[in-house]
Amino acid sequence: MPWKKVKNLLATQSILLASGSPRRREILSLLGLPMEVATPQVDEKPPADKDVFSQISEIAEKKAGWARSYYPHHLIIAADTEVILEGRLWGKPKSREEAKAMLLALSGRTHIVATSVVVLFPRRERYLFQEKTLVTLARFSADDLDEYLSCENPLDKAGGYGIQDFFGACFIERIDGCFYNVMGFPLPRFCQFMSRLEFTDT
Amino acid sequence: MPWKKVKNLLATQSILLASGSPRRREILSLLGLPMEVATPQVDEKPPADKDVFSQISEIAEKKAGWARSYYPHHLIIAADTEVILEGRLWGKPKSREEAKAMLLALSGRTHIVATSVVVLFPRRERYLFQEKTLVTLARFSADDLDEYLSCENPLDKAGGYGIQDFFGACFIERIDGCFYNVMGFPLPRFCQFMSRLEFTDT
Repeated sequence: MPWKKVKNLLATQSILLASGSPRRREILSLLGLPMEVATPQVDEKPPADKDVFSQISEIAEKKAGWARSYYPHHLIIAADTEVILEGRLWGKPKSREEAKAMLLALSGRTHIVATSVVVLFPRRERYLFQEKTLVTLARFSADDLDEYLSCENPLDKAGGYGIQDFFGACFIERIDGCFYNVMGFPLPRFCQFMSRLEFTDT
Repeated sequence: MPWKKVKNLLATQSILLASGSPRRREILSLLGLPMEVATPQVDEKPPADKDVFSQISEIAEKKAGWARSYYPHHLIIAADTEVILEGRLWGKPKSREEAKAMLLALSGRTHIVATSVVVLFPRRERYLFQEKTLVTLARFSADDLDEYLSCENPLDKAGGYGIQDFFGACFIERIDGCFYNVMGFPLPRFCQFMSRLEFTDT
């Protein structure tokens, strides 16, 4: 991968990360590039008439569109990460009770974590890709969850858990695929994706 | 998993983590339990007459034995993590040049990361398990590595990379198995393992 090319390219741009997720910010900070951050004010409810994977891309597109209207000259990076089980999106829980019910449904099973990433260039080119990872959780009980829910905040995380918190450390038996994707941003794929683009005009 | 049982059990013990790895410390801190830490002063050179997976266990046993001689009444946790490719251990690089050569050998291929964990109880019971994870790296060039080697320290990491640093974020295409294992301690497996033990005497 021509990593220097990617880094040099990005270094010439004003970058705006359109995301409220602290984990996504943390992952992208590994690139060591200056980056502005803004939390998109959009309705994240997915359009019900599409398949789940298209729904995720649509939410990411919405976030990118919101950012473009405020930041017309930036290279915009937007993303949406969702948990999928039984063919449907599980979203972010609205309460601890809902988080508990979600997590109990995931206990002892394999689910999909999918992230859609949208990159908008200042000259209006738009790129989109999606990364999927399988996550297998150990079996756990409602009692086990009380411990987790009493000390962590499950409400800002799709599916109610974070791969890097107490829950992830104890209950994620295995993942198959990109683990940064499960954290919220598939950086390896992003770097590969960017390295394949030709930039002659920006 | 009877998580509360594990946590309550561990809370009754004085725990000593026999490891110099800051990442291992960080992972175990997710348990939220008080823990002492000591860096084992042992020869980590593996015994050449054993298969690679037994070599890793032997190094972990050595570390645990070292800790026992200084901490006779603690519950001791020791571990050794190694990178395996082409049937041999790759160890920690001794110089940046060696790190570069190691990483170039791993480029574009799948290797194994294996950790042996030894748990010694105060009454002399000893337990050992091993966790293996497959890690697939993207193709990268010597040029790509210069960037990494100029800003990170590869010398304290088996194989010369960290899953959570700049390199991991950009070049680890996928992992199959436990990602905490790749960081240096398979905490999910540890919790499951501990939950299956019966403690009547400690």
